[in-house]
Amino acid sequence: MQLTSQNIITFLLSISLMLFFAKLLGELFNKIGQPAVVGEIVAGIILGPTVFGSLLPYAFNWLFPQNNEVKVALDGIVNLAVILLLLVSGLEVDLSVVMKEGKTAFLTGAMGIIVPFSLGFTAAYFFPNLLGIKDDSMKLAFALFMGIALSISALPVIVKTLMDLGIFKTEIGFIIVAAAMFNDIVGWLIFSVILGMIGVNNHGLNFQQTLIYLIAFTLFVLVIFRKIINKVLPWIQKNLNFPGGVLNFILILGFLSAAFTEYIGVHAIFGSFIMGIAIGDSVHIKEKTKEIIQQFITNIFAPLFFVSIGLTVNFITNFNFLIVAVILIFAFFGKVIGCGIGARFAGLNKNDSLAVGFGMNSRGAMEIILGILAFQYGLIHADVFVALVIMALITSVSSAPFMKYFLKERENLLNILSPNLILFTNFAGKNEVIGELVSLISKNLKLSTEKIYNEVIERENSIPTGIANYLAIPHARVDISKPAVAIALNKEGINFEASDGTLSRIIFLLLTPKNKNELQLKLLVDIVNKFKDKQKVEELLHSLNPADFISKLKQL
Amino acid sequence: MQLTSQNIITFLLSISLMLFFAKLLGELFNKIGQPAVVGEIVAGIILGPTVFGSLLPYAFNWLFPQNNEVKVALDGIVNLAVILLLLVSGLEVDLSVVMKEGKTAFLTGAMGIIVPFSLGFTAAYFFPNLLGIKDDSMKLAFALFMGIALSISALPVIVKTLMDLGIFKTEIGFIIVAAAMFNDIVGWLIFSVILGMIGVNNHGLNFQQTLIYLIAFTLFVLVIFRKIINKVLPWIQKNLNFPGGVLNFILILGFLSAAFTEYIGVHAIFGSFIMGIAIGDSVHIKEKTKEIIQQFITNIFAPLFFVSIGLTVNFITNFNFLIVAVILIFAFFGKVIGCGIGARFAGLNKNDSLAVGFGMNSRGAMEIILGILAFQYGLIHADVFVALVIMALITSVSSAPFMKYFLKERENLLNILSPNLILFTNFAGKNEVIGELVSLISKNLKLSTEKIYNEVIERENSIPTGIANYLAIPHARVDISKPAVAIALNKEGINFEASDGTLSRIIFLLLTPKNKNELQLKLLVDIVNKFKDKQKVEELLHSLNPADFISKLKQL
Repeated sequence: MQLTSQNIITFLLSISLMLFFAKLLGELFNKIGQPAVVGEIVAGIILGPTVFGSLLPYAFNWLFPQNNEVKVALDGIVNLAVILLLLVSGLEVDLSVVMKEGKTAFLTGAMGIIVPFSLGFTAAYFFPNLLGIKDDSMKLAFALFMGIALSISALPVIVKTLMDLGIFKTEIGFIIVAAAMFNDIVGWLIFSVILGMIGVNNHGLNFQQTLIYLIAFTLFVLVIFRKIINKVLPWIQKNLNFPGGVLNFILILGFLSAAFTEYIGVHAIFGSFIMGIAIGDSVHIKEKTKEIIQQFITNIFAPLFFVSIGLTVNFITNFNFLIVAVILIFAFFGKVIGCGIGARFAGLNKNDSLAVGFGMNSRGAMEIILGILAFQYGLIHADVFVALVIMALITSVSSAPFMKYFLKERENLLNILSPNLILFTNFAGKNEVIGELVSLISKNLKLSTEKIYNEVIERENSIPTGIANYLAIPHARVDISKPAVAIALNKEGINFEASDGTLSRIIFLLLTPKNKNELQLKLLVDIVNKFKDKQKVEELLHSLNPADFISKLKQL
Repeated sequence: MQLTSQNIITFLLSISLMLFFAKLLGELFNKIGQPAVVGEIVAGIILGPTVFGSLLPYAFNWLFPQNNEVKVALDGIVNLAVILLLLVSGLEVDLSVVMKEGKTAFLTGAMGIIVPFSLGFTAAYFFPNLLGIKDDSMKLAFALFMGIALSISALPVIVKTLMDLGIFKTEIGFIIVAAAMFNDIVGWLIFSVILGMIGVNNHGLNFQQTLIYLIAFTLFVLVIFRKIINKVLPWIQKNLNFPGGVLNFILILGFLSAAFTEYIGVHAIFGSFIMGIAIGDSVHIKEKTKEIIQQFITNIFAPLFFVSIGLTVNFITNFNFLIVAVILIFAFFGKVIGCGIGARFAGLNKNDSLAVGFGMNSRGAMEIILGILAFQYGLIHADVFVALVIMALITSVSSAPFMKYFLKERENLLNILSPNLILFTNFAGKNEVIGELVSLISKNLKLSTEKIYNEVIERENSIPTGIANYLAIPHARVDISKPAVAIALNKEGINFEASDGTLSRIIFLLLTPKNKNELQLKLLVDIVNKFKDKQKVEELLHSLNPADFISKLKQL
């Protein structure tokens, strides 16, 4: 069995089309302030049976055949894509921060399963007719299925959404990721029980075994193997061709780990994610290596996966309003309220808790995979399957705007940046640049230029604000209600007496409200934290325009 | 039809194993002076039916099943791999240089088909028994098959070998690539005729149509579309997310072009190669984009393709000494002598012509694909098939050592570099650094330190040798029989009065024989040409050790 010449043509055309529409819709959604991943999922619905398949069924069946070698080859790529996406996401996770958020993550993750699972289980067990199920003998399996289908968050969608919003590496981001990981572990365990009940448990392990292997493996990788990697990496980078050697090393470990978790009955992506965390934690891993992997995978592989979700079914013909509405309402309430309560218990404020709730609300591939299996084994009808996919899409699509809404009030660095407040300057004098920044910011905020200028200069004269890695942060506390920042980029560099002796080439003017001491400190730390890696700061210096600068700063 | 959980486990394990052995053998072969690609092919033989499959047949059949979804999924990846490899190779081709070598490439490519084709055709037509063919009615098809099987060079293997040897971007490199492209166009055309004769012509085009479409498409892409790309690229880089937008653009165009050439009956890799050339020719394409694509593809995808070749057959049980010997001798003589004569006609000297001959000698995937089809359709027996694969491997494996041997005499920059003659220095004075370099080189070559030092300083005092981009080339013509070069790397920089005002941080001391004016000029130009791109030079400055410096310099 291998691909014929005709298969290869179809295969290449379908991949090209998927990449093209993913990019097109991804960029369009970006332009309207949505994360690219939403555009990529929508691209799949357009390319799938719903739109393209309805309008041009012959062409659709030719390009995306359901029953031949091309489908299998695409399936292979899509599987690699999602495994690699989680590997890359893992590389970016800072384990120490996740540990710090442990309690919040645990409460959020646990409540994010208990509430939606209870809702789904109860509804399905006591009102099966509501969801179109007539056969009483399958009630228990069906109820478990509905419970879990409402509970499993989609780690890849969540991670990509957080990255697209630029908050992946923030406190909220880590809480969500850690909670989603916890949620997934539990979800997959129940998932494996259901697979056994509906007769597709072919990995030969029972629930206890899966649980024990999973915990043992996770601990082994994150505690022991992480240290081994940290020891082996310098040797690889020194003795093997760079970056080829380390690229291979990362991918091989990721694939092996994925194969193992798939083998013990948990999805492959969990293994590559865990291994990604263990590798990314090493201090020896170079930015260049990460960048090559990340750019290629997030731009080529990931879109293929997200597009593929929409290729599965026709969302119009299989649409049943009642079922969709019930599942959607239960899914939203269960997850947002469950996670929100968990986060609130752990001490987050109301807005942050809701942001976490909506962040956790994305459902995706797991629901669809589970749905396909349940559908094949006669546990659910096509309309329930479609409702699940629609629920997965709407929860994923709505996650970013809700999060943005609830995080808007949060005074973090990224929220107060504005392209209008960034300037490229040639002035070489400290006072001139501060003057420029103050006049820019005061024009924008309608404040008194002179007063602010004097405050900033006074502060600057008492202790110069040059930090390191080309950064300076002149600042003052003034009569404003919200913090504001203006940024100057200077190619030559200006002497702010930075501790490392560098001339400052990126100057943040930070103004904070008079009565909020701790906010000034927090924002100063936010900025300094962005400038830890000199090499990345040098890339910032090459920003083409203010928007480019902000997007680069978000990635730091 | 889609991958089961068990399929995914097998798929991941087989890819991991392929990557691991490819890297292991690739690095080992690198260490003994062979190009990595040879190691990757050998890795395939070890992993394939020959070694692993013989020793552990059960495990082998489990990991590399011949007849299920995993095989198809792997086939999909391998096809993408070779298409992407040729896309990347295309990006690196400098069209103007290839044009300049047009006549030599044409003569070499044409003779590289005529001679081996005649040998193969004659032997098969008049002595079919020798090759185990008894059925007279298939004589013509068989003779055509043998002719073409001896004639088609393996562009991917050739390109990778040239890259591994660091001569891809030299005059010889371009002659070989241009000739191989010409060779491939003609070879694939005849190939498509044979496919028609043995009944697998399923693209529905006859020979003339294929020919016309191919020429029209090639001209369209390289003449018109190339200009369109050059216009569109700046827009993409400005308006879309970078480097995501341009990465997608390159891959989509490559895949579409590959699909088109596959459709007209020429192999897909030809289309991606042509498109790669058209894209790479644009002045707007950024180094960073190229690097991300190149590193990921040459380190991850390409090894998967090269390993896959060896997975096809058992090379021991199907080994027939007589047939192997006949095919091997005809293949070597036909190709090396044919191409050698072509290159010699075009004016190359004897050693260079032989280097071109051996450079063109690599056979590979096309022979194997053609062989598989011919085998399936009963045109050849298993032993002829195995002989063809062995021929492909031995010609590929022997290409690099023979080329190295015949190019050894060639006095080019890369041949005279030696890790022993590179030093990392802290001296800040021009004379001190020159003194250091002279004493290093005179110790190595057993020359008089003082005499050389005076000659170099005298030249330096008349015209300073600082060039630009941190480069300086103090030089002299002295009493030696062969040119020599010593290199100093200096972090701070030394004033050699470079035209761009930079301090020189990489200092080449170049000594050439007194009687060879033009050689000194050639080597000076060779060095200066390597330092055209400031960003790449900055990477050179970060070399970890002399070997790393040489390997980075080779890539420039």
